[in-house]
Amino acid sequence: MAGRAHPGEPTGREAMPVKDVTYKPIGVIRSPHTKQEDTPIQPVFARGVAGRVELLPEYEEGLRDIEGFSYIYLFYAFDRAKEARLLVVPYLEDTERGVFATRAPCRPNALGMSLVRLLRREGAVLHIEDVDVLDGTPLLDIKPYIGRYDSREDVRSGWQDDVDDTTARERGRRGFGSGKS
Amino acid sequence: MAGRAHPGEPTGREAMPVKDVTYKPIGVIRSPHTKQEDTPIQPVFARGVAGRVELLPEYEEGLRDIEGFSYIYLFYAFDRAKEARLLVVPYLEDTERGVFATRAPCRPNALGMSLVRLLRREGAVLHIEDVDVLDGTPLLDIKPYIGRYDSREDVRSGWQDDVDDTTARERGRRGFGSGKS
Repeated sequence: MAGRAHPGEPTGREAMPVKDVTYKPIGVIRSPHTKQEDTPIQPVFARGVAGRVELLPEYEEGLRDIEGFSYIYLFYAFDRAKEARLLVVPYLEDTERGVFATRAPCRPNALGMSLVRLLRREGAVLHIEDVDVLDGTPLLDIKPYIGRYDSREDVRSGWQDDVDDTTARERGRRGFGSGKS
Repeated sequence: MAGRAHPGEPTGREAMPVKDVTYKPIGVIRSPHTKQEDTPIQPVFARGVAGRVELLPEYEEGLRDIEGFSYIYLFYAFDRAKEARLLVVPYLEDTERGVFATRAPCRPNALGMSLVRLLRREGAVLHIEDVDVLDGTPLLDIKPYIGRYDSREDVRSGWQDDVDDTTARERGRRGFGSGKS
């Protein structure tokens, strides 16, 4: 029997959904990043890195009015992620964390999200900046970044709050721009 | 032949990826919302609405340390979305927009994202607030909201900037809390 519900919370306890969810890539992300170890781990560590979204032509109409947004979310398949793990050691520190408390690619569902700067559109192609995605990554969705929906204040960011900005920047860029190859 | 590349941009033009991407739900989202027409369209229009993430027990270890984050992104399948369309009329106004310039569920890949408040964890269950998701929605991924990664300043939000806050709030809550049923 389920325990007592908290006030205002839903009480339903039907079976868990088990049906697989299948998505068809709608395009591809182009970038200068070809090696995982040289790819910045987040857009904020890839400032100014240019790339492109190449949408399949049949979806071009869905981009109408996107030019008005300065940032867009890209959702994509981490198609070269290592095998999923529940505990990972993040790049920014040396402690094992639950994968859902990190942005590591080796997740049970290898779904990636990057918040990139939108420079301009040419038909079905979006020119973007701050790209932390491997070249050739399959694109699943695009959503606009909307100020009133997507920013939060007074945020606690867990273990990330204990990583200072300098360390984060140094480790977060990985090999990118360091001359290492 | 491809046109001239912009400086610093990638030049590769291999074939588009066409392989489907399949995800297995890792749990389910519980909420008081059972009717689409009464479900707020965004977490900011669902302030204080309580719900739960019920993770399948085998993924519980992946939640380690998530308690430190005040907000988390939920990624889920819009399993009751209408047929995909490339042009949609958003709830907040009366003009047709490209679906990728909106957050409408009827997208080519029906992938949803909600940024919700994390109240506490009990084993494989997360107690959350600001829930704009239909009860029983299949969960695909959880990522922490990280201040240094996820907020942007000086943002243009396209057509959304022309919708005033009062109109947005009124339309964005839809039937929720209005007594309509």
